[in-house]
This record gives sequence, structure tokens and C-alpha cells, in this order.
Amino acid sequence: MKELAVGIDIGGTHTVFGLVDKLGNCLAQNRMYTKDFDTFSDFISTLSAKIKALEIPNQANYKVIGIGVGAPNADYINQTIENASNLSWEGILPLGDLLRKKFGLPVKVTNDANASAMAEMIYGGAIGMKNFMVLTLGTGLGSGIVVNNEIVYGHSGFAGEFGHIIARPDGRQCGCGRFGCLETYASATGIKRTVSKLLAKYSFKSELRGIPFDRMSAKKLADAAYHGDEIALESFEYTGKILGIALANVVAINNPEAIFLAGGLSKAGDLLLKPTQYHMEENLLSVYKGKTVLKVTSVNGNSGILGSAAMIWNLV
Amino acid sequence: MKELAVGIDIGGTHTVFGLVDKLGNCLAQNRMYTKDFDTFSDFISTLSAKIKALEIPNQANYKVIGIGVGAPNADYINQTIENASNLSWEGILPLGDLLRKKFGLPVKVTNDANASAMAEMIYGGAIGMKNFMVLTLGTGLGSGIVVNNEIVYGHSGFAGEFGHIIARPDGRQCGCGRFGCLETYASATGIKRTVSKLLAKYSFKSELRGIPFDRMSAKKLADAAYHGDEIALESFEYTGKILGIALANVVAINNPEAIFLAGGLSKAGDLLLKPTQYHMEENLLSVYKGKTVLKVTSVNGNSGILGSAAMIWNLV
Repeated sequence: MKELAVGIDIGGTHTVFGLVDKLGNCLAQNRMYTKDFDTFSDFISTLSAKIKALEIPNQANYKVIGIGVGAPNADYINQTIENASNLSWEGILPLGDLLRKKFGLPVKVTNDANASAMAEMIYGGAIGMKNFMVLTLGTGLGSGIVVNNEIVYGHSGFAGEFGHIIARPDGRQCGCGRFGCLETYASATGIKRTVSKLLAKYSFKSELRGIPFDRMSAKKLADAAYHGDEIALESFEYTGKILGIALANVVAINNPEAIFLAGGLSKAGDLLLKPTQYHMEENLLSVYKGKTVLKVTSVNGNSGILGSAAMIWNLV
Repeated sequence: MKELAVGIDIGGTHTVFGLVDKLGNCLAQNRMYTKDFDTFSDFISTLSAKIKALEIPNQANYKVIGIGVGAPNADYINQTIENASNLSWEGILPLGDLLRKKFGLPVKVTNDANASAMAEMIYGGAIGMKNFMVLTLGTGLGSGIVVNNEIVYGHSGFAGEFGHIIARPDGRQCGCGRFGCLETYASATGIKRTVSKLLAKYSFKSELRGIPFDRMSAKKLADAAYHGDEIALESFEYTGKILGIALANVVAINNPEAIFLAGGLSKAGDLLLKPTQYHMEENLLSVYKGKTVLKVTSVNGNSGILGSAAMIWNLV
């Protein structure tokens, strides 16, 4: 009987999940919309049903031994989600308890970005690194930080809310109730807001003028940029500038060897990487210049699923 | 024969040093001006002579077994000081090598703020804490960060340059060659600059108008504030605001249990602590509110000396 773990990555827009073996192979996976459910308990019921419906060849030879979950604002000690600004359910959500009741299996919960950091450390570009950081640029901006080979949880388990450092005092309104948080600029949602601002500021022709705010996506933006669309190109430059300055500050605090970009917006690759790298280097204190590598995640597969599943085998 | 360690704390203005026992008692200490020396080698010669001249009762019963040094921009691996913006000697200074030649004893070198963090952990308010941070508010702003019970050195050994995060884009000119670094606002030097600015901005009577910029000190400012001087009070409020916002950001990254203020400016106590606390809490993401304690160091004695000496016994 071969052992498998369920890995679940709950995001603001999509929730993805899969069956993973100890080597990091995802044998089956599926996804659903996170926003389709009025209550968290309905969400967990449907998610559980869909996980049980996952099929793999020679299913009888496998046994699922536990469930790892990465979720925004997750409390890894109490296995809850607390007041996540990118989820529609309010209050403290009993994630671990509900899943344990559905499956009768051990459950481990962590912040979604910490799960990505674990995946980077075991299966990705951070193998052998003792100090690094992963940013997940999706609906929001999550961060998983590793210092001296360990995930940084901090005193109350909530370290790594890098998306909520104030990048611009009195800047854009954030779902957290404050203004100017980094994720209102540097995330899939943030760059959409930047496009909207630039469409107002400039009078250039742009293929983006035909796309409603709600339908804009990082993919469409990247396509427009590859076509030479000036608004699209400028939106990556602006995002990279704000993100690069913020990264220069975090380098001065934790001095990581590398920073990995993951999540939907990171798929834009060099369009985002190059301006971010430029502005990070421009703003670094001299002792740090040229010493922190910025790159896109090299995890092969969904890092949220793989990192969450890895918790079940205590690989990290 | 009882064992002693030499602890040295090299600061931008003063260098203090002492003979310390394993329990953290400083049996003799002295100080000298750091700025009095044209070359680093002259500085080390005088420092060594003054250390050798330290006297304690029953000196024959003691044996010095090593030398610990905390210095700005210190590289703990190579035992050098690299391009320290608050010291007048340029380039890479062979601190460890020069002291070893003078004494023929083991030498350990760390960043001055890391030494203070070690002292806080062994002898001060951070006993039993796994995640905390110490800020040294002197000529500059240094920081020593502890995560999961360990000093954060980072990839290249230079973690903790919190004084050089950009607090105000295009703000005040910093000794590091950039603009807007936190230490140009939140340090003994920074608050002097704030006073100068406020004396220009307001027309209130102030006892500070009679003190030249070069003669202003945190002590004189605190005295004026206790007399109700509006410029002095406002200078602490402004410093606390900029520092508090920066602290709210670092809490979102590493989620420390406590932040300790040390160094000359911290002696102002509540004058600085209250506005900093207020603005930190105001700017914290809700999950962190009320969870990070801000206080003045409770190390009894010079934390730079005690923390540096502690390295010799591998207490941390």
C-alpha cells in the first residue's frame, strides 16, 4: 500500500487540491471557485466531496494518510482561518476541525504562502538555501519566509504578511481596512487597479480599453504587453517599482539569499521580474547589492498543493 | 583562576569596553571617543592600551580568555567592518585580525545591535522569548533580530540593517548615500535633524533655539520636553510616528513578541515610547494589534559590552 497525502491550496479566487506522493508527484488534481459558496461549511462540504471523487490509476494500491492545507490568514496552531480579507467568510473559520470530521484523518494547516515556501525548499529553487522568501502574487500578496532553515511563524503564528506592509502611506484602499498595503499594488488584483489608473492618466490607444475591470487578468495584461501595448508595459513597470522598493526593505531586515515569485501574476515572467529586479537593486543598501537573487518559482506543479501535502510527512 | 571576557561596543560616537564575568557582571569599564582617530589602526592601538589598563580588585585571580566586539556594519564571518556609514574610516577594516595581534586571544565579532539582542536574551527583558527585536537608537539605528531563538544573520551576514529601510522615499540624505533611511529620522542624530526642521517650521519660543545643531543631544531634548517645550515634544511625536509606522511593517514580516529600544535616544523613555507605541498600533494589521510589546531595554549595564562578551562563552 503506497501512501498519499491530500494537498489543498485555498486562494481568494480558486481552491486547488490534489493527491500527492512523498516524492512530490501530484497524481490527480482538481479545482473549484472559492467565491461560489455563501458559507464556509458549504465550501468545505463541496471541497470534501470533490477530494473524495479524485481518481487515480490503481486506486486500490494507495492509502491517503493525511490532509495538508494552505490558506490565507491561516493559524497553524489553532488550524483556523482568521479574518481573511481576501475571503468572503468573516470571523474565525474552523478549517482543521471541519476537515477532520469529513475525513477522520490528521490535518495540518498553514498559511498558503508558507506552503509555497515549503514546496520551494523541498522541490523547487530553494533546495539547499537557508534564508529565502517566497511571494505568492495572486488575488492578494502572501509571503513565506525561511530564516536559518525554518519557516518563520513568529510569536503568534502570523509572520509573513508582507502583502500588508504599508507601501504607500494613504495609498489604495485595502480589504484589510487600511490604506496603501503592498498587495493593493503588487498582486493580480493590484496590477488591474494600476491598469485602471493608467487608462485614466494616459490617452494612448490600448487594447486594454476594451476589457472591463472585472474581466482583466494577468494573462490578458501579459498578452497586451507582448503586443507592445504601452499601458500594459507601464503597468508592469509601476508594479515592479513598488514591489522592488518593498523588497529592498525586506532584504535590509532578513538578508535572504533569494526571493521567489509565485502565483498567477508571476506567470508574466520577465515582464514583472525585470522592473522588480531593477528597482530592488536601485534601492538596496550597498552591502546587499547583487547578493539577493530574484526569480520565478521553479516548483513543477502547484506549489500550494505540494507544500501543504509535504507537511503530512514532516518533510519540513 | 576566574575567567573574564573583554566586551567592546564600537559606536559612531563612543566606544565603550569592559571586563565581564560569565554571569554578566561588568567588573571594570571605560570609554573613548571613536571619532578622535585618523586611522583605524591608531584607534585599535589606543583601544587595546586602554583595555590592558583596566583594573579590577584582586586582578591576579582573573584571567581574560577572549574578546567579543560589537561594531556597526560588522561582518561576523570575516570579522571585518565594511563601509560603515557612521564611522569615519572607509573600506573594509580588519577588526578581528588587529585585535588578535594585540592580545593573542580568541576574538569574536558581531554587529553592535546583534550584541545588544544577545544581551537582551541572556540578561534582559527577552529571557525566554523566541522572537524579538532590539533597536539601538544611537548615532544611527541598528537592529538585532531573533527568530526561532536564533540571531538572524541572513545569507551574507548582514541581516538587521533596519535603520536603512526607506522610511520616506526621497527623504533625508543618509550617510549610506541614499535618501529617506529610517535612521535619518529615528536615531539620536535623526531627532536632532527633526528639531532643526521644527525650529524652522514653527515660531514657538523654545529653549532649543539657543543650542547649536552640533551641541544638541537626546538628553537636552528630553530635558526640554520635560519642561513642556513644544518643539521638543513635537520632535518626539514626529520621531515616534515614523518609527511606529516602520515597526508596524516589520511586525507584518517577522511577527515578534517584543521590540526593545536601546541606545542613547531610548533613555528618553516614555517621551519616545508613547508616540512610537501609538503609531505602531495604529498602523498594525488587525491580527497583530495588541500582540507585540514595545519597551525600553531592561539590560542592567551596557548591552553592547555584555552581549559582545557573551559570545566568548557561547552563551548564545
